Amino acid sequence: MEQRLRDQYRFLLEIDKLKTVLRQNVLSDQSRRENSAEHSWHLAVMALCLGEYAEPGTDVAVATKMLLLHDLVEIDAGDAFVHMPDEQTRLRLDEIAAAKRIFALLPADQGSGFESLWTEFESGSSREAKFARVIDKVQPLLLIEATGAITWRTFGTTRSQILRKLEFIATDAPKLWPRIQRTIDEALATGALVRD
Amino acid sequence: MEQRLRDQYRFLLEIDKLKTVLRQNVLSDQSRRENSAEHSWHLAVMALCLGEYAEPGTDVAVATKMLLLHDLVEIDAGDAFVHMPDEQTRLRLDEIAAAKRIFALLPADQGSGFESLWTEFESGSSREAKFARVIDKVQPLLLIEATGAITWRTFGTTRSQILRKLEFIATDAPKLWPRIQRTIDEALATGALVRD
Repeated sequence: MEQRLRDQYRFLLEIDKLKTVLRQNVLSDQSRRENSAEHSWHLAVMALCLGEYAEPGTDVAVATKMLLLHDLVEIDAGDAFVHMPDEQTRLRLDEIAAAKRIFALLPADQGSGFESLWTEFESGSSREAKFARVIDKVQPLLLIEATGAITWRTFGTTRSQILRKLEFIATDAPKLWPRIQRTIDEALATGALVRD
Repeated sequence: MEQRLRDQYRFLLEIDKLKTVLRQNVLSDQSRRENSAEHSWHLAVMALCLGEYAEPGTDVAVATKMLLLHDLVEIDAGDAFVHMPDEQTRLRLDEIAAAKRIFALLPADQGSGFESLWTEFESGSSREAKFARVIDKVQPLLLIEATGAITWRTFGTTRSQILRKLEFIATDAPKLWPRIQRTIDEALATGALVRD
C-alpha cells in the first residue's frame, strides 16, 4: 500500500503542470489566457449543470470524470490549435504517447482505468464520451461570447471552420444546438466570425 | 426551457471569476500563486485518485461534485487565510451570502441542489463531506512538499497550527494519516515548520 500511495502522489504532483499549459481562449474579464487546468474545472461544472440536456441514459458522473482527465495529455503535447489539419497526425501520436507516460505513473489497475476513459473520450464512442465532447466545445463558446469573440477575431476564424468543429452537437446534444447556433449567428452579425 | 438554459449560462459565466481568485499556495514550479478554479480541478482529480482511502460506503462521485462547487463562494468572499480565527465569523457570514447569491443564478431546483451540497460540505456531516474535506486539506500539502514549504516559511506557520487544521484526517481518513504525518515530520526536520 505504501508504494501504491507513493505512485498516486507522484501522478498527482505531475498533473500540477496542467496549470501552466495555456489555451488560446481568454478569461471573461480578458485579463489573461485560460489555462487547461481551470478550463477542465469549468468543463466539469458545466457537465454537472447541463447534464439534463445529454441524451437519455448518459451517466453524467462518468462524463465529468472524462472531462477532468481528458486534457492531461497536454502536459506533454501542448494545447492544439484547432484549425491546423496538417498538425493533426503528429499531435495525435504525441497525445497517445503522453497518455501512456502520464497514466503509467499510477498503479497499473488505476492507470489503465484512467487511460481507458481518455481513449473512450477521444473515440467519442459512448453516450458519456459524446456528451463530454459536446461540453468541451460549448465552454469555449461561453468565453467567446463574453469577450466579443477576441479569439475568433485574432485568428480570422470563418463560419465554415466553426461549423465543421461544432456541427456534431446538432446530433449528439440536439437540445443545446439552437443555443450554439445563436452564438454563431450573433458572431456573424457583428463580423466577429468571417462569413465564407 | 429557453429561460432555464439562459439562467444556467448566466451561472456558468459568473463562475469564470473563480479563475481570478488567488490562494496563498504556489504552484509546484513556483512560477505563481494557485487560483481557486485550478485548485478545485486538482482536488477533483485527487478525489478520483484517492477514493479508495475514503471510509467504506463513501460515494466518491458525490464528494467530487462537492469539491468542484465548494470554492465558488470565494468569488464574493475571497480565499480565507487559514490561521486568523478572528476573521472566521465574518467570513462565514460572507460565504453564506455568497452561496445564496451565486446558486440563485441557477434555476431554483438546480440551485438549491447545489447549495445543499455546499452546506453539506461545510458541515462535514456525511461520509462524502468528510472525505471531500480531507482531500481539500491534502492537496495543499502536495504543493507544500514540492516547494520546500514556501508558504509555511513565509507565514512562520507552527506545528500546532497545522495539527489543529489536519488532525481530523486521523479520524476521517485514517489510511492517509501516516502520509500526512510524514509531510509534517519532514517539514519540522528542515525547519520549514516552526516547532512549538
